[in-house]
Amino acid sequence: MNRLIWSRLDEAARSAALTRPVQTVAQQTRDAVATLIAQVRGQGDDALRAITARFDGVELPSFEVSEAEFAAADAAVPAELRQAMVEAAERIARFHAAGMGTGYAVETAPGVVCERMLRPIGRVGLYVPAGSAPLPSTALMLGVPAQLAGCPQVVLCTPPRADGTADPAVLVAARLTGVQRVFKLGGAQAIAAMAYGTASIPACDKLFGPGNSFVTEAKQQVAQDGAAAIDMPAGPSEVLVIADAGANPAFVAADLLSQAEHGPDSQVLLLTDDTAMLAAVEAEVERQVALLPRQQIARQALSASRLIQVDSLDEAFAISNRYAPEHLILALRDPRAWLDKVQAAGSVFLGDYTPEALGDYCSGTNHVLPTAGAARAYSGVSVASFQNLISVQSASAAGLAAIGGCARIIASAEGLDAHERAVAVRMEVAA
Amino acid sequence: MNRLIWSRLDEAARSAALTRPVQTVAQQTRDAVATLIAQVRGQGDDALRAITARFDGVELPSFEVSEAEFAAADAAVPAELRQAMVEAAERIARFHAAGMGTGYAVETAPGVVCERMLRPIGRVGLYVPAGSAPLPSTALMLGVPAQLAGCPQVVLCTPPRADGTADPAVLVAARLTGVQRVFKLGGAQAIAAMAYGTASIPACDKLFGPGNSFVTEAKQQVAQDGAAAIDMPAGPSEVLVIADAGANPAFVAADLLSQAEHGPDSQVLLLTDDTAMLAAVEAEVERQVALLPRQQIARQALSASRLIQVDSLDEAFAISNRYAPEHLILALRDPRAWLDKVQAAGSVFLGDYTPEALGDYCSGTNHVLPTAGAARAYSGVSVASFQNLISVQSASAAGLAAIGGCARIIASAEGLDAHERAVAVRMEVAA
Repeated sequence: MNRLIWSRLDEAARSAALTRPVQTVAQQTRDAVATLIAQVRGQGDDALRAITARFDGVELPSFEVSEAEFAAADAAVPAELRQAMVEAAERIARFHAAGMGTGYAVETAPGVVCERMLRPIGRVGLYVPAGSAPLPSTALMLGVPAQLAGCPQVVLCTPPRADGTADPAVLVAARLTGVQRVFKLGGAQAIAAMAYGTASIPACDKLFGPGNSFVTEAKQQVAQDGAAAIDMPAGPSEVLVIADAGANPAFVAADLLSQAEHGPDSQVLLLTDDTAMLAAVEAEVERQVALLPRQQIARQALSASRLIQVDSLDEAFAISNRYAPEHLILALRDPRAWLDKVQAAGSVFLGDYTPEALGDYCSGTNHVLPTAGAARAYSGVSVASFQNLISVQSASAAGLAAIGGCARIIASAEGLDAHERAVAVRMEVAA
Repeated sequence: MNRLIWSRLDEAARSAALTRPVQTVAQQTRDAVATLIAQVRGQGDDALRAITARFDGVELPSFEVSEAEFAAADAAVPAELRQAMVEAAERIARFHAAGMGTGYAVETAPGVVCERMLRPIGRVGLYVPAGSAPLPSTALMLGVPAQLAGCPQVVLCTPPRADGTADPAVLVAARLTGVQRVFKLGGAQAIAAMAYGTASIPACDKLFGPGNSFVTEAKQQVAQDGAAAIDMPAGPSEVLVIADAGANPAFVAADLLSQAEHGPDSQVLLLTDDTAMLAAVEAEVERQVALLPRQQIARQALSASRLIQVDSLDEAFAISNRYAPEHLILALRDPRAWLDKVQAAGSVFLGDYTPEALGDYCSGTNHVLPTAGAARAYSGVSVASFQNLISVQSASAAGLAAIGGCARIIASAEGLDAHERAVAVRMEVAA
């Protein structure tokens, strides 16, 4: 791991210290994704079958998960796991439901009422990865808010396994959140199918969910083309921990490792004002990483990690806001007192007994969060991500008389005479 | 104008009827924009000066509007226009403030509190076009919600005029909303400058505002690059009117024309269940268009317009939802009764006395709205567009005991052992 003392770094070194592992998408990936998308748009299901045979190694007669497969998944998932998912879904629903927006109306002038209506997005597509591991938790994180929003059409794509089935836990999670239609389809081809539609996959207005570099590049390309909106740009997962002298080095190390095991390009940062803490955490990381099944992955991620000594916790928060981490853990004695300092982060974890894993699975918050500094201007998935806000206005003849003159003056100043006349023609009749 | 009877169209003809005028960005535009962006990234202010000299025909020693220029603008704007903008800004503020979200907290399990905090986006950039006409109203529509959100850094770019000054009304509008820093800079170069920053233009986290095809392509490219988020994809403006037999043809025609005058690629649609209304509106359009200064532009837009006869108003709403118009005017006898049918639209105008121009300027709603069908999955600008939602969770030792088991089970099922251990190591200590 890389140990740095912030006060000794010049601006270039500070900038380098906060630079993510290279995220530039290779032109090769861009071109490959563009080709896959073009194939799916041109040949539909035939292309999907060929691509799935090539990348997933399975010939699928049908992509859609049948009722028999759902039943088999139900039987295959251990009761303990099913119960854990039920409980997680309940807490996710409780937190997300409490944050739902509502419509409202304001009389902005006598006889002029302005309103906002909320509408579910009509057709949404959820992507649940199953690369190094299937992620049923992601099905919950996307399915629950989609259900709360009331989206009339929800489809979910997840890659097939080598035997042509989908991961049973993902199927159970999908059904727990009311998702009826699941397709065994992964990668850029799944994104293309949901964006443009094929004979068997319905087209969607907005696509959600994390994925590998092909999936995220495909999401960017279909969004750029205007085919479908996407939840947010995605990148490798990351955590930033701010620890004080009272933090438990074993806890901090465990948090750094739980991020590092996600992938070799995950990034972990520790900021502390206590020199001894840096050394203690580094020793704990070394001890704990040796115990992990995914230690090769974790070690790769740790090679890009940063242990940064700061002069003060104020400085730590300034650095954190500049970095805008996906996950921010405040391993502080009075974490709530520092919360006002947090300006940009995806999700924040307070104190010694709130490991990031709680938010990943079952505290109730969402784990689909902005990465790569996107937290400066993007938020994690919420029910609002599945809704449109539509504004409405209604003027009576009196209302038009009250504000029509204002509109006419500005319209004329902008040289838009037809705008001015659309108001004037009514004011003449109403007068 | 094109008159169509919906029931006589097959699916291909229906699809064609609802297709927007071609929006594909020419490869030439893409390349030109990419070149401009690269120049600004590479040569900063020097590139901005050279590009501005080339495209705007002015040599600017400094891009930033000086206090003397603000004072001159104050003196130049007629009192009547200034007053109209003050009133418009007040109504926009009243409507937008009432729709602001709030933070909240939920105890999702005993000892587990999940929260959401709202934070202003740190650095935002507003773009106000000044092509065929300067748009001070857009400065209000962007500046007011930015101010309500409390964004600490707000900058605004607007193209310089031939004499090297900025439009005085835009400057007055900017200051009315608290925007302190305005730069005389237009086109793709303004977007590049705000996304990447130069010596004189500060880098921004998110960019807002409409623009020509160069501006919108530049916004897409900087967003794709991860340099800055953008408010929404933009396209030519459009209106869809649903009129019943009782509507006033002169009003409907005026609304269609107020959209058509925006630009030759604007699109206007009329849906009605009354044959006589179609003919009456067409005659009114012909009569009124001849009176307009911008009639050449309007006539071009009208050539791509659609007057569609439907069997029922239900059918009209189905078509409207499929089209997802930026502006939707309900010229109906009881418009509020139909509002539930609206599933996708940017902004809705109810009844005979609510012309779109009210929403464009001063009813209180925002006029920066999703176009080109994006209303299916995007919403217009609101205060939320200038805010980040950050989730927060806090578990006590008891809270961890309550839900830690759930997290461990799902983590193990996903093969993420370090996640499981980050929970377990704490539960051992807490027990």
